[in-house]
Amino acid sequence: MSILVVGSVAFDNIATPSGKAENVLGGSATYFSLAASYFTDVRVVAVVGEDFTAEHENILRKRGVDTRGIEHAKGKTFRWGGQYLENLNEAKTDFTELNVFEKFQPRIPAGYQDSSVLFLGNIHPSLQAAVRLEMPDVKLTGGDTMNFWITGANAELRETLRLVNILLINDGEAKMLAKESNLPRAAQKVLALGPQALVIKHGEYGATIFFREGAFGIGTHPFRAPALPIDEVKDPTGAGDSFAGGFMGYIASQEEINREVIKRALFYGGVMGSFAVERFGTERLQSLTRGEIDARFQVFRELTHLE
Amino acid sequence: MSILVVGSVAFDNIATPSGKAENVLGGSATYFSLAASYFTDVRVVAVVGEDFTAEHENILRKRGVDTRGIEHAKGKTFRWGGQYLENLNEAKTDFTELNVFEKFQPRIPAGYQDSSVLFLGNIHPSLQAAVRLEMPDVKLTGGDTMNFWITGANAELRETLRLVNILLINDGEAKMLAKESNLPRAAQKVLALGPQALVIKHGEYGATIFFREGAFGIGTHPFRAPALPIDEVKDPTGAGDSFAGGFMGYIASQEEINREVIKRALFYGGVMGSFAVERFGTERLQSLTRGEIDARFQVFRELTHLE
Repeated sequence: MSILVVGSVAFDNIATPSGKAENVLGGSATYFSLAASYFTDVRVVAVVGEDFTAEHENILRKRGVDTRGIEHAKGKTFRWGGQYLENLNEAKTDFTELNVFEKFQPRIPAGYQDSSVLFLGNIHPSLQAAVRLEMPDVKLTGGDTMNFWITGANAELRETLRLVNILLINDGEAKMLAKESNLPRAAQKVLALGPQALVIKHGEYGATIFFREGAFGIGTHPFRAPALPIDEVKDPTGAGDSFAGGFMGYIASQEEINREVIKRALFYGGVMGSFAVERFGTERLQSLTRGEIDARFQVFRELTHLE
Repeated sequence: MSILVVGSVAFDNIATPSGKAENVLGGSATYFSLAASYFTDVRVVAVVGEDFTAEHENILRKRGVDTRGIEHAKGKTFRWGGQYLENLNEAKTDFTELNVFEKFQPRIPAGYQDSSVLFLGNIHPSLQAAVRLEMPDVKLTGGDTMNFWITGANAELRETLRLVNILLINDGEAKMLAKESNLPRAAQKVLALGPQALVIKHGEYGATIFFREGAFGIGTHPFRAPALPIDEVKDPTGAGDSFAGGFMGYIASQEEINREVIKRALFYGGVMGSFAVERFGTERLQSLTRGEIDARFQVFRELTHLE
């Protein structure tokens, strides 16, 4: 099944304890697409400026990503600069230049209408909702959000959450959205807002999925996938989007959604996130093989597997 | 195989978002003993004051814990008061009264000499080393420590670490001890100080065990056990000691140490930690059944198990 992702394409300036990189291609749609491309067909809806060249587009096209939905607008592409200090889970933003992203109105090419799975990357909740409503036939919708929208566009976000089947956010976002510091209780409150399932990403500790009563007909027991302890995290940027790409991509590659598929998807999410952080920007995600991915999947599985 | 534990017995005043409790029996040796008592015979070496009554001792004895090694000294038992705010992983200490603990010189009853497994609870590293040297025949030694000793008795701690087979500490302690913020790299540095294996406890995210080359002849791949997401954490006090009790207790109950035993022990550690936090003090650890423990072990297993 094809996945359509709507999100940001950006150029990032990144500083981490391992080094620096400037003007590297990034953005939620970019990381998501590359990660998902190892599992299924991916189509992107995003906006870029005049500084986004054919060379940049080729990074996506080489991975078979359908870029017809990338709108080329006058001006500069969205730019973000940030640094990670000792705590690699948290970025300190140096600057955000929205540029062409400021007036982004997602337009979905006619050829994308038969997409079965939709992923609403981290953009304004009203835009997420608009995209979802333009895709009435999708079978499964995943979504992301962040503290900026939780506080700044809460009412719109709540509307969007009614349209999302699986929400993927991190611990801090889940607690903020639910106004509840206990994670399982926070999960129940978020699920009450609409999603059938909630994936909470724990960074280096993996991720847990919680289910609403009756969701997908697969029971309500939570499931947790570990993350591989990585010797060197070079650049955490995009880890969450890469996780989402692996998770949604694997689900889209399967005939049906059952408990085992969702469990494996959670592991694949962790696998793709762990690859993403090994190099700056999207470098590692550009040249993986399915063999490398499945080998790491087995390492993850062994990491917690009891006979 | 019998376990001998040396550590603290204390009376705690605890405040958490769920409530308050005063003068509840606590201390590392207490939590450890109760948790380990569901797996094997446990013997305690500790010191208490005149405020420690037969009723308190009965809490341990009812669980079959051998209390002959608890020395009754003149004065008051060690007392600690602390509170947990929204972040339940971190206690704010209100007061520490060492009392009889200040001059604690562990004395090991002759009847304890045949103990096969030793656990050095969180006391001064020099006392830990002295106990270990008085028990030349133990087959396996586990140990704990904390930031207070890492900074305040670093040289002594390094001596002790050469005598410990398995060290159990949390993320922050591992990073502080190794002076390294990346967890797998921190683990390697700690293992270079002596232990064959290092268990790093991640609170609600479970625990990971790292192995030194050649340790126990079972390979060097790390293993991670998740923690159950708990709906209500009433009181995190003693979670780490209860983890250690479940982990060491399960190992002591087995004929030999192999990879599968250590993996299961890591799960049992998480199980006992998760029970400990459900009630204030040691209440929940006093009245468990092995059936309840094994049922939760299965829930933990299912939490991350792929077919």
